[in-house]
Amino acid sequence: MNIPLNHIFSCSSCECTYEPSPNTLSCHSCEAPLNVLYYEELSHSACPAGWTGPDIPLPVVQQSDYITLGEGNTPIVKLKNSNGVLPENVYAKLEYQNPTGSFKDRGTAIMLSVLNTMGVTELVEDSSGNAGASISAYSANSNIRAHIFAPETTPLSKMIQIQIYGAETYSIPGTREDATFAAKEFAKKFSHIYASHNLSPYFIEGTKIFAYELFDQLANEMPDDIIMPVGNGSLYLGMWKGINELHEKGLITKIPRLHCVQARAVMPIVAAHNGEFWDKAKLGLTKAGGIAVGSPPRLHQVLDVLKKSNGSSIAVDEDEITLWHTRLPKSEGIYAEPTSAAAFAGAQKLLERGVIESASRVLIPVTGFGMKDKDPS
Amino acid sequence: MNIPLNHIFSCSSCECTYEPSPNTLSCHSCEAPLNVLYYEELSHSACPAGWTGPDIPLPVVQQSDYITLGEGNTPIVKLKNSNGVLPENVYAKLEYQNPTGSFKDRGTAIMLSVLNTMGVTELVEDSSGNAGASISAYSANSNIRAHIFAPETTPLSKMIQIQIYGAETYSIPGTREDATFAAKEFAKKFSHIYASHNLSPYFIEGTKIFAYELFDQLANEMPDDIIMPVGNGSLYLGMWKGINELHEKGLITKIPRLHCVQARAVMPIVAAHNGEFWDKAKLGLTKAGGIAVGSPPRLHQVLDVLKKSNGSSIAVDEDEITLWHTRLPKSEGIYAEPTSAAAFAGAQKLLERGVIESASRVLIPVTGFGMKDKDPS
Repeated sequence: MNIPLNHIFSCSSCECTYEPSPNTLSCHSCEAPLNVLYYEELSHSACPAGWTGPDIPLPVVQQSDYITLGEGNTPIVKLKNSNGVLPENVYAKLEYQNPTGSFKDRGTAIMLSVLNTMGVTELVEDSSGNAGASISAYSANSNIRAHIFAPETTPLSKMIQIQIYGAETYSIPGTREDATFAAKEFAKKFSHIYASHNLSPYFIEGTKIFAYELFDQLANEMPDDIIMPVGNGSLYLGMWKGINELHEKGLITKIPRLHCVQARAVMPIVAAHNGEFWDKAKLGLTKAGGIAVGSPPRLHQVLDVLKKSNGSSIAVDEDEITLWHTRLPKSEGIYAEPTSAAAFAGAQKLLERGVIESASRVLIPVTGFGMKDKDPS
Repeated sequence: MNIPLNHIFSCSSCECTYEPSPNTLSCHSCEAPLNVLYYEELSHSACPAGWTGPDIPLPVVQQSDYITLGEGNTPIVKLKNSNGVLPENVYAKLEYQNPTGSFKDRGTAIMLSVLNTMGVTELVEDSSGNAGASISAYSANSNIRAHIFAPETTPLSKMIQIQIYGAETYSIPGTREDATFAAKEFAKKFSHIYASHNLSPYFIEGTKIFAYELFDQLANEMPDDIIMPVGNGSLYLGMWKGINELHEKGLITKIPRLHCVQARAVMPIVAAHNGEFWDKAKLGLTKAGGIAVGSPPRLHQVLDVLKKSNGSSIAVDEDEITLWHTRLPKSEGIYAEPTSAAAFAGAQKLLERGVIESASRVLIPVTGFGMKDKDPS
């Protein structure tokens, strides 16, 4: 088992550090999730093939260790027909042009590359759909046997996609958290690796490349505001880590505000951040399944980024999500899944409330492809 | 109406030339389809934003004339787990990572950019699915009203995708050709532009960028063999045009062999090329709907490229398509639609027959995303 040499795990809440291991997913002392911390002296890491931007600290030490299906390097297009309801300059980064149709491929590529180097041959994951498809695909590519637990509310099209790549699937009644619980129990029972995209510190190392691409594509013209659909926050936290690294290196001077959008039915971040009332016990249904996470394990980290980036959090209603889910393809030719549409609904609301200005340069990641989800209602 | 200034139309069969117009789709003298021919003296054209490779002759004169949804720039991944059945070095260019999930977006982007410049505001098209979705999306982005005629055998998921971008759809009983006939009649009746991706000379100008990307990604290490699913041949002919331009400029020295793969049920190219018996009157059904074209209007051009590139044509059976449709996601993490899977079945057969060698460097475009089609049978 070749343990990568350029980093350790550090607790996201206390001062504990750990030797990297696929079995170490939370702090033994305070139970908080872990982050990757790179050795300053041993900071050598390999960037993905074809990357021509600034060096990225990554937990993959050798180029040959990469497992890739062609993730990342997604285009940015400027919206043309949404003036009046959105700020004048809204840019969409089309994350659905990833190998399995969502941004999750960024995190999966790095997580699976490292786990594969560590000798993992079988893993367990829980997912509302996109991460499951992504991990199933990358597992197939690297001959890893994958078991994916998904809530039974997962759209059939997403379940089929997970199965097509060859993973064993388990449809779990109840909430998103019930699927997590079942996955953990299964991993424990059979001594498999629990490769949680929400807990593995490696996943965020992959999503942070999004921020490096922004720099590569826009140079120092970073957006004023980045508006994201946030469930567990794997893209949100990766974005922040990448932006911070770029800032520390002096490559960017402006720090964008990172805003969180949630569906009103499932809004733990909005509730914790704004103090808006939300009863977790009455978890509602939302078509934005990718962010329907009642108890995000990295909540304290998301709240910290909201504070540090001067971001805001906002809840959107189901009819607002539906409106943008229908409007985006018809007005812009962008077919997003409902989870991504929620971010555009959030952008409209943030403009209406004066949180962002009409002249703001806004970037919205379109996190998943509409074809992956059920048809718009 | 700003007619682009850098090209004329030339007949693909005789010596006629024509002033570019959205209404001119075939030679008035011999009825053959037309090609774009660039003026040598007025060869200025604008490359797509972000393109850093060699200059590409394109019919778009000004950068601001481009209509884009982030097409092209697709990754190339090397197959890892298909040794034994395929040559040792097979590279897949993942065209499903285009905005609407297929390579058609390359052609649509250029065709719609020019038609938009010419003042077109309403158009008619016929499609087995992918081109329809693509044209619907780009039409939405450029405020063009689109009418898409599709055969009633088009998978429901593809019809839904066409509708989601806002085009009017028309489901036509009968063959692929019946949809073409209905589209032409409709266009004539209402005096709309018939923006056929099979006939418009602009479509191939978009798909030829594929070849320029190959050069950009592989430098002078062009593959020995390129194996493609071919129906109307819009990618095949674009590929050839691009490769020729690169060769004429002295940028590449090797000309890859361009091989055509068709489904046995609908194999006019194989029949015309190899002399294999195929009864057009008994047009069979195939799950490779993207290449189910009984009478390709550019057949003579495809045959010409087969000859000039020293390529071969081959028919594959339905069970071979199904095998690769199922195998690719499970062994490589690549989820292709059946049409694309046919090319891998063809590659296997070409290897078995000794047409390509085990040591050949082979490239296969994965033309469309599996999520766009019905589930594997």
